[in-house]
Amino acid sequence: MAVQSVESSTTSPAASPASTSPTPSFGPAVALSCRECGERFDLGPIFACTACFGPLEIAYELPTGDPEGLRRRIEAGPNNIWRYAPLLPVPADVADTPSLNPGFTKLVKADNLARELGVTGELHIKDDSGNPTHSFKDRVVAIAVQAARTFGFTTLSCSSTGNLAGAVGAAAARAGFRSCVFIPHDLEAGKVVMAAVYGGDLVGIEGTYDDVNRFCSELIGDPAGEGWGFVNVNLRPYYGEGSKTLAYEICEQLGWRLPDQIVIPIASGSQLTKIDKGLKELIQLGLVEDRPYKIFGAQAEGCSPVSAAFKAGHDVVRPQKPNTIAKSLAIGNPADGPYVLDIARRTGGAVEDVTDEQVVDAIKLLARTEGIFAETAGGVTVGVTKKLIEDGLLDPALTTVVLNTGDGLKTLDAVAPTTGPSATIRPTLDSFREAGLV
Amino acid sequence: MAVQSVESSTTSPAASPASTSPTPSFGPAVALSCRECGERFDLGPIFACTACFGPLEIAYELPTGDPEGLRRRIEAGPNNIWRYAPLLPVPADVADTPSLNPGFTKLVKADNLARELGVTGELHIKDDSGNPTHSFKDRVVAIAVQAARTFGFTTLSCSSTGNLAGAVGAAAARAGFRSCVFIPHDLEAGKVVMAAVYGGDLVGIEGTYDDVNRFCSELIGDPAGEGWGFVNVNLRPYYGEGSKTLAYEICEQLGWRLPDQIVIPIASGSQLTKIDKGLKELIQLGLVEDRPYKIFGAQAEGCSPVSAAFKAGHDVVRPQKPNTIAKSLAIGNPADGPYVLDIARRTGGAVEDVTDEQVVDAIKLLARTEGIFAETAGGVTVGVTKKLIEDGLLDPALTTVVLNTGDGLKTLDAVAPTTGPSATIRPTLDSFREAGLV
Ligand SMILES: Cc1ncc(COP(=O)(O)O)c(C=O)c1O
Ligand SMILES: Cc1ncc(COP(=O)(O)O)c(C=O)c1O
Ligand SMILES: [Zn+2]
Ligand SMILES: [Zn+2]
Repeated sequence: MAVQSVESSTTSPAASPASTSPTPSFGPAVALSCRECGERFDLGPIFACTACFGPLEIAYELPTGDPEGLRRRIEAGPNNIWRYAPLLPVPADVADTPSLNPGFTKLVKADNLARELGVTGELHIKDDSGNPTHSFKDRVVAIAVQAARTFGFTTLSCSSTGNLAGAVGAAAARAGFRSCVFIPHDLEAGKVVMAAVYGGDLVGIEGTYDDVNRFCSELIGDPAGEGWGFVNVNLRPYYGEGSKTLAYEICEQLGWRLPDQIVIPIASGSQLTKIDKGLKELIQLGLVEDRPYKIFGAQAEGCSPVSAAFKAGHDVVRPQKPNTIAKSLAIGNPADGPYVLDIARRTGGAVEDVTDEQVVDAIKLLARTEGIFAETAGGVTVGVTKKLIEDGLLDPALTTVVLNTGDGLKTLDAVAPTTGPSATIRPTLDSFREAGLV
Repeated sequence: MAVQSVESSTTSPAASPASTSPTPSFGPAVALSCRECGERFDLGPIFACTACFGPLEIAYELPTGDPEGLRRRIEAGPNNIWRYAPLLPVPADVADTPSLNPGFTKLVKADNLARELGVTGELHIKDDSGNPTHSFKDRVVAIAVQAARTFGFTTLSCSSTGNLAGAVGAAAARAGFRSCVFIPHDLEAGKVVMAAVYGGDLVGIEGTYDDVNRFCSELIGDPAGEGWGFVNVNLRPYYGEGSKTLAYEICEQLGWRLPDQIVIPIASGSQLTKIDKGLKELIQLGLVEDRPYKIFGAQAEGCSPVSAAFKAGHDVVRPQKPNTIAKSLAIGNPADGPYVLDIARRTGGAVEDVTDEQVVDAIKLLARTEGIFAETAGGVTVGVTKKLIEDGLLDPALTTVVLNTGDGLKTLDAVAPTTGPSATIRPTLDSFREAGLV
């Protein structure tokens, strides 16, 4: 990764705090730390370790010692991710800056679905389609935008499988940044329009997401990318932290209780690793009881590099060329794949995949039982949950949370061929009776 | 209206409370009362006065006398419409029954949009695209479902311009009802799929919404409609009350303060009249200061029967044949039209309309400034707000709330022809430079 050129091509006026004392701009965050070798760096727009090229993540000095006080402070906060500001790399007054204020989406107790799946314990859907641009990406973008502001970037950018592009476009519009986002040219109509409607530039790239991502890494090192904050590249350490809020919310909404099992979709694997990080922090802070939980990863068969590695017992992930309707998860070369494998194994979970047909069936199952219309990524998690129960890997007697991270309206094509009017009639009772619905 | 046949064809086991004492099933609601002649009826699945055929609405014994206590009770309630249960025709324990739990959507302070529109006072968007099926219809359906349960209906139904069909399908799935909903056959793809995906029956009708509505009135009087609760026909008095929650939320989110001006879209006119009812209740209960507010109605030029009547100074509304991209508002013969005229005139507001082109421009303006992607109905309200300011009818120095009642993903066709990639390139820096975006 072109770390040198990243550092030389980005402006970072406020990127050099001492690594041991927090600065107001980053709240409790004190440094970047290498996930591989532990080397520490000042907080800045960098994402890879200069010593070993490992990914950097945020290190904190978290407010330990008074869990009750922290809990009360969180509960008195706004109904969005900023209630967790004390645990995020953001200033304490973050809620005052213009943002889409994502998060605090519904945790839906899914009794009807539980019955159909033979779950006797509690089953919940964490429904992130309720976010401002209707995917969990609003969470990660909100944190990245904060960092972009501190670093003095003027253009927001990203490589995206669709949802991220819309989330960046919308957040940039509201926060007053220019935006220019990159997607594979053949995405779903809903995602293309949403990525463009906020008035920033949208660039379609002839290739897969992995081609788009490689292109963005090059652009960061080029003068053309000067002053650009790529939320999931040079701002990736900040971006990733947004997914911790899913862990926080799930536990808070369960009454400050860890779920026994969580099923999470995998594209790059960032979200899954950061949910694990968030759960560990809650334990460390004494906000939840310290007891085991299992993390399950979910992929579509047509793009299942992590699932394949898990089943083969490998520690590394062999890249795949994606071919699935779950386009939002179609990352063939997932950056955080090895960490996902590690987490699934360490917690006693698993990584599983389902066919496109099973994805569609699962979307409809969730809609029919709970009135939640998920995008294909939600079909993947619900489908994988069903399969894991059938295979005896997920315990139906325990408390399980399944993530729906996106919205069915963005992937209409998945269900449209098999979803439509039962009948089309003239506006008369006779015509209705002929339709045979009563 | 076929009131007699309605009463004889519906089952209503719990529909005969004494008109003066509340029953647990309907909370503070004590009777139905005729909007025209004031005649009172027991709470039941009826919607028109037997004396004068006027529409029935819910009459309450509201919890007066302790505004501070009521305010605290509301603020301690759930983050959805059920926090206002003490002001709705629902049981006190309503939050325990399966529901999509809509409401408490964001009130977004729209400073960027204010600047573009020359608004110097506070401008807010009440963004109801955050509801479970992404329109305000989840609010009205939630109340109707409660009533349907009490009355023993087993099938939920409606005539819909699109959003209501999806809201009924989803709510029925979660609450365990069968559903069969009716729409004009030529709606947007997103609305058709969403109306069908929850597994109930969806019937397309060859005709306008007004044909669909007429058909549903006939079906209620027919044995084929036995046991059916039509949320916006025989359950209309209950359904309508759901829109009051928009008034409650706006005032609570403004810090228990009335806005000076509200801009509301009009299809049948139900929502606008019930928001006015909600504001009046808050004043009566002492939850907000008693001072004037102005209500503005918004239509698309291609379906502007109420706006036309307002401008002509008429008290009655002459039906139109709709022709507009704002299909969710395409009701040519609006049931509550006369009451809308009355409210706009009484409060010193107005009713205005905009062209389809202005609707599209307004959708993009809102997206570009605030990162909110509205459906055509939101384009209508934002477009009308702009026009009202230009015409001097809306005071830019006061506090104004504009409703976005639906989601841009459901009306992609409105913006798709003029919204897409700035460029499509190969994944190389050269190809990017050629595109001329930097
Ligand atoms: C809807 C949805 N869910 C899940 C993911 C997975 O994200 P990650 O790359 O963090 O694994 C994505 C990524 O684009 C997504 O769009
Ligand atoms: C998005 C949207 N906004 C507003 C309305 C107006 O509703 P009403 O019939 O209450 O005037 C509708 C009605 O279908 C709608 O779908
Ligand atoms: Zn390292
Ligand atoms: Zn009457």
